[in-house]
Amino acid sequence: MIIDCHGHYTTAPRELELFRDRQLAGLADASRRPTSTDLGISDDQIRESLEKAQLKFQRERGTDVTIFSPRAAGMAHHVGTADTSRVWSRICNDLIHRVCTLYPENFVGVCQLPQSPGVPPANCIDELTRCVNELGFIGCNLNPDPSGGYWKDPPLTDRYWYPLYEKMVELDVPAMVHVSSSCNPCFHATGAHYINGDTTAFMQFITADLFRDFPTLKFIIPHGGGAVPYHWGRYRGLAQDMKRPPLKDHLLKNVFFDTCVYHLPGIELLTRVIPVENILFASEMVGAVKGIDPETGQHYDDTKRYIDQIQMSAADKTKIYEGNALKVYGRLKTALKQRKAA
Amino acid sequence: MIIDCHGHYTTAPRELELFRDRQLAGLADASRRPTSTDLGISDDQIRESLEKAQLKFQRERGTDVTIFSPRAAGMAHHVGTADTSRVWSRICNDLIHRVCTLYPENFVGVCQLPQSPGVPPANCIDELTRCVNELGFIGCNLNPDPSGGYWKDPPLTDRYWYPLYEKMVELDVPAMVHVSSSCNPCFHATGAHYINGDTTAFMQFITADLFRDFPTLKFIIPHGGGAVPYHWGRYRGLAQDMKRPPLKDHLLKNVFFDTCVYHLPGIELLTRVIPVENILFASEMVGAVKGIDPETGQHYDDTKRYIDQIQMSAADKTKIYEGNALKVYGRLKTALKQRKAA
Repeated sequence: MIIDCHGHYTTAPRELELFRDRQLAGLADASRRPTSTDLGISDDQIRESLEKAQLKFQRERGTDVTIFSPRAAGMAHHVGTADTSRVWSRICNDLIHRVCTLYPENFVGVCQLPQSPGVPPANCIDELTRCVNELGFIGCNLNPDPSGGYWKDPPLTDRYWYPLYEKMVELDVPAMVHVSSSCNPCFHATGAHYINGDTTAFMQFITADLFRDFPTLKFIIPHGGGAVPYHWGRYRGLAQDMKRPPLKDHLLKNVFFDTCVYHLPGIELLTRVIPVENILFASEMVGAVKGIDPETGQHYDDTKRYIDQIQMSAADKTKIYEGNALKVYGRLKTALKQRKAA
Repeated sequence: MIIDCHGHYTTAPRELELFRDRQLAGLADASRRPTSTDLGISDDQIRESLEKAQLKFQRERGTDVTIFSPRAAGMAHHVGTADTSRVWSRICNDLIHRVCTLYPENFVGVCQLPQSPGVPPANCIDELTRCVNELGFIGCNLNPDPSGGYWKDPPLTDRYWYPLYEKMVELDVPAMVHVSSSCNPCFHATGAHYINGDTTAFMQFITADLFRDFPTLKFIIPHGGGAVPYHWGRYRGLAQDMKRPPLKDHLLKNVFFDTCVYHLPGIELLTRVIPVENILFASEMVGAVKGIDPETGQHYDDTKRYIDQIQMSAADKTKIYEGNALKVYGRLKTALKQRKAA
């Protein structure tokens, strides 16, 4: 089985964005606030939005299941208030649940959290619990910078985040560390802010003892770990200069990287320097880069092709494609079984 | 000849930091302001600070000349006012000039700019001109985020920066894009802020037409280009999705990467995906990572060892070690000749 651990519902019917427009218009003029959270999206619309995109690519590329969450750029935690974020997260998560219910073989849900800048992340516990216990979700996306490019909240290793981590551990769900859109003109979202968010989070984890406090807490750092594998010597060296334990002991029981790196040399580097147990297959399709690479004639984000080309034992490839995801997402095995039975 | 294009005076005598303390104390209490800009550092102190560090490593590693600038983390443009930065830059640059005068065979100067958050970079023109015309410097370090981790100034492609670029072009000097220390607790300086700064600058260059306006303007992106080479497919794909020209045409006549990547697999990736003409040898010693890699028994930052191990023609290696630096730093050849003659 091939599990893609990083897919967003980037192709949701436009009614979702129309709702969002009305919701944000309501911040300026309460009379424009949506009167219902019913998006008016039919099952057929959902099917159509997926059949020609995510499902088509799953079939063409030969992947089986996508761990699926709302559009990351759409979370926009920096916009509006904590209540804006609460309502918006719930709606986006419910839509993911409909996707997973319509296509139980193809998608397993991961939720958006109702974060808001300056608001302690404990406010996300209710929505996380609802998504896991009521909707069968198996993880969450955690935004290390709810301010959208100004990095005003504390680092992920601060006790500020601990109540949420306690709940994650209790529910046995990991978080993918994933920023949202950038409202800072210095940062292009998918080209700078996303990658910087990944790099920043990893360095935060190096400097602290978060995993001594939470030995079973797990994070996936997407986009191949940002800059980290390319600078693996730098990170090993920085940890050493700071008298931290070797990274393998310090972080690699808790921190994992996905394979959203859009060329073969990058994937080769990733699989060469990072232990195979810490790599989870992912493509982020339909996502950041949509085009076809003229050098290969294939989609940039068809990451399975790169992994298929790598010199590696079949057993190790199975870990990347399936085994590691089943370990990191503690609820995935059960979720897959239940869906097959449904 | 082996030219290291990225070295900072991280080992300056402590009198420099004592001056800085008094300067900053003077912000709070004018009576503590230093009464003289004479640091009271003797030539022997300068010699001692270099002989056991940069010069020792040059000899041991077999490199010849270092393009040398003030400590990057020390620039701290976010601290104090534009006047603080003006005085501090001048002092730091004058100290580099003394180094280059004492060791004309070993060091060529690059200057710190008196940037300050929210102050148009045109204010740096006088110091740049002084350093180039009076001190014989051949480039500058340009901080894309004078706010020290909050990214409050406009992107590098904004016309805000154009007056400084006009002067750089006129003087025929490139800039290394280099952030300073971070006052944002989210960003570890050398592990996150530095690398993010590199990635961010490159993406800014992709989105705009800066080099149509300045066809001869040149930037070196240090630390191996941040995350860029590892995600080269992503950047090619993003440029393509945005209908930008291929990166080779769009940026690579103007943007160059150094080799401050502290392990062999990273250097292999860099030299595989980035055209050899765009790679300049550098080590950043004595810098970000000081330790010895237990996997190799050598210093992490002894980047020459990695390049020496790469499969590449001798002619291409000479480009990385020497030829590209001579092209990118338009004044380097003359500077080297004058120093030999001196």
